[in-house]
Parts: sequence; structure tokens; C-alpha cells
Amino acid sequence: MRIAVLGTGMVGSAISGKLAELGHDVRVGSRTASGGTVEFADAAAHGEIVFNCTNGAASLDALAAAGANNLAGKTLIDVANPLDFSGGGPALFTDTTDSLGERIQAAFPDARVVKSLNTINCNLMVDAASVPGDHVVFVCGNDDAAKAQTRGLLGEFGWPAERVLDLGDITAARGTEHYLMLWLRLMGATGGPNFNISVSTMPR
Amino acid sequence: MRIAVLGTGMVGSAISGKLAELGHDVRVGSRTASGGTVEFADAAAHGEIVFNCTNGAASLDALAAAGANNLAGKTLIDVANPLDFSGGGPALFTDTTDSLGERIQAAFPDARVVKSLNTINCNLMVDAASVPGDHVVFVCGNDDAAKAQTRGLLGEFGWPAERVLDLGDITAARGTEHYLMLWLRLMGATGGPNFNISVSTMPR
Repeated sequence: MRIAVLGTGMVGSAISGKLAELGHDVRVGSRTASGGTVEFADAAAHGEIVFNCTNGAASLDALAAAGANNLAGKTLIDVANPLDFSGGGPALFTDTTDSLGERIQAAFPDARVVKSLNTINCNLMVDAASVPGDHVVFVCGNDDAAKAQTRGLLGEFGWPAERVLDLGDITAARGTEHYLMLWLRLMGATGGPNFNISVSTMPR
Repeated sequence: MRIAVLGTGMVGSAISGKLAELGHDVRVGSRTASGGTVEFADAAAHGEIVFNCTNGAASLDALAAAGANNLAGKTLIDVANPLDFSGGGPALFTDTTDSLGERIQAAFPDARVVKSLNTINCNLMVDAASVPGDHVVFVCGNDDAAKAQTRGLLGEFGWPAERVLDLGDITAARGTEHYLMLWLRLMGATGGPNFNISVSTMPR
């Protein structure tokens, strides 16, 4: 499948590397083309699916550079978090009535935005089995077909269907993004980023 | 042990009921005394340990009514969440650089505030085994002795020591309170409030 990965940081590198390893036809988009990467718009034009792996604070600008016409009708998997380090410590630049996922969907109404993978470290994103247990990854978005397509790729990353939890429409990104505030504390308590959460429910 | 439970809602009722069942000498505090409850100040004066189970939006006022002198030196277990329904949907009235737990510690500097139990439904708080699995409860606060005392009570509620995760000082309340935004979505996805999360880490 032709896939665009926007962003060349750790997240973009992990996802583009894994997708290429899986045999997909990947183009990596960056602000300026350089060895191995093309401009955002060229990558987005190539992809049938687009991953947003840019820095959350720069995501709307990066997607504008990618071009609304290059995103229209496509599944846009938003992996970014609205992290804000301007105040010294990690915080979010959104409040609890808002999310980056919603801002992206609002800014690009013809894209089919699915928020996913933003709750886990980039190595774990593409290698679910590297941490034992029935830990989960979340998806949310307004388009069921786009979520199904995302689930397919998650399956290729090692996430079985029963460990992909659908939280509903894109407003659920408020939940998965704000969870980052707990994730950061769990990283401290567990001694590193290689962890994830499972959900246990009462037997019915 | 003499324990004060401030608040007569579902959370206060679950906690005070369980503590009484365990044989503790419990007084339940409310804004006005009525059958079975005393005023906030009378409850707080009685308790060697104080639970804040009031509505988050009203917690600082309730604790002021309880009296700083009645909280000084005591372990104050803050179970409240800064939930705000004024906008229609659930949101928090704190941003990610702040938390109710920190506001309470700042307002009552002589109390030894421990944030705990706010990430789970009230029935599960006092009966950890009602949901299977190694799901966890968090503690955070600035005073290690107060956290140890809290762990003791959590043990009586069925939480073994290895399932009580210490996230550090009271600023970690930003994490456990903002997790509520994910909790609310998980409640929708799992069909009810009787669930909790476990944490899996990569083997070292």
C-alpha cells in the first residue's frame, strides 16, 4: 500500500521503518526534502493513507503544507500529542474540552482522521509483542471505514483486534491525549517508556 | 483508628461504609449535621486520618469548613476529581500545569495530602478483588509517612502492596486527575464503570 509518513523524528522513523519492512511503498515527508525524505506535499500526494507523526505544536502547519487536497478522502492517522514544553515541564496546549485530533479534523474536514498510537512509546507502537500482557492501543474517529483501515495496519504492527479499543468519535482524543499526563508519571514510576496499560473489567 | 470521611455522596458512602465494616471509628462530615453525619469540622477534629470525598468543585470550601487546624499534621487522602460539568460535557476545571491535589496541599500546607483512589469507581475502591487482574491504584504526595499510612488502608480495601503504584510527589495528581478524561471514554467503551487499568512493562 502507498503510505505517507509525515515527520522524521523518533515516531516517524519508527513507523516509516516498520512500514517499509512490511513491504509498503512509503514516502517520508519533511518540511524540506533531503536524503530519503520528500516535502510534506509530495509525501501526502503519494499516500493512500497518511500518518501524522509531526510534533503536535507543528502538526496543523505541517498538514497545511501537505495540502488539504492531498489529504481529502484519505485515512489520516494522527499519532501526535499536543505537548507543550514552553512552561518548563511537560503540559498540553489543549484543555479538556478540546484535542489536537479534533483540531486536525476541523481544519481538514475532508480527511478521515483516526487518532491512534499516541499513548505508547514509538518502539512499542510497531512491535506490540515487545511488552508482555494484554495491553491495548486505542482508536477513535468519526469514520468507521477509516478506523477499520487503521485496525488493519495496527494488526500488521502486532496488535490483535481484541487489543484495539475503539473509544468512539474523534472527541475521544481528549481522553487519549490527556492520558499523556499520567503516561509521563508512569514512565517515571516504571523507570522508562517501555510500558503500556491493559483494561480489566468486572465479569458480567 | 479514628477516621473522618468528608462527603456523603457515593464515594463518601462507599468509603465510610467500608471503614466502619472494617472496625474503624468513623465520623462522616457534611455541610450540615443530619442523621448519621456531623459537620465537616466535627468530623475532621475526630479523625486521625481524613478522607476528602467531597465534590471536587466544592472541596476547598469543604476543607476550609473542616478547619486548617483540624487537618494540620494529619494524612488527608484526597479522592476528589476536578470535574466540571458546567459546559455540558465532562471536563476538568484545572489545566495540565495544575491539579486539585496541589491546590489542596497549597491551601492546607500543614496537612499531609495524598492523592489516591480517584481513578476508580467507588465500589471498586473498597473492594479491589471485584475486578479480576493485576489492576492498580495510584498514590502521590509529598510526605512518605502519609503515603505509607494510605497504603495501609488501601491494603485493608484489598489492594496488595505491589498493586499500589507510587507516582511521586503531589504534582503527579496532574496525571491521575487528567486520566479521568480517558476513564470516561473507557467507561463508554467497556459498558460501565467497573473496570480498571494494569501496567505492563518490558522485561529487563
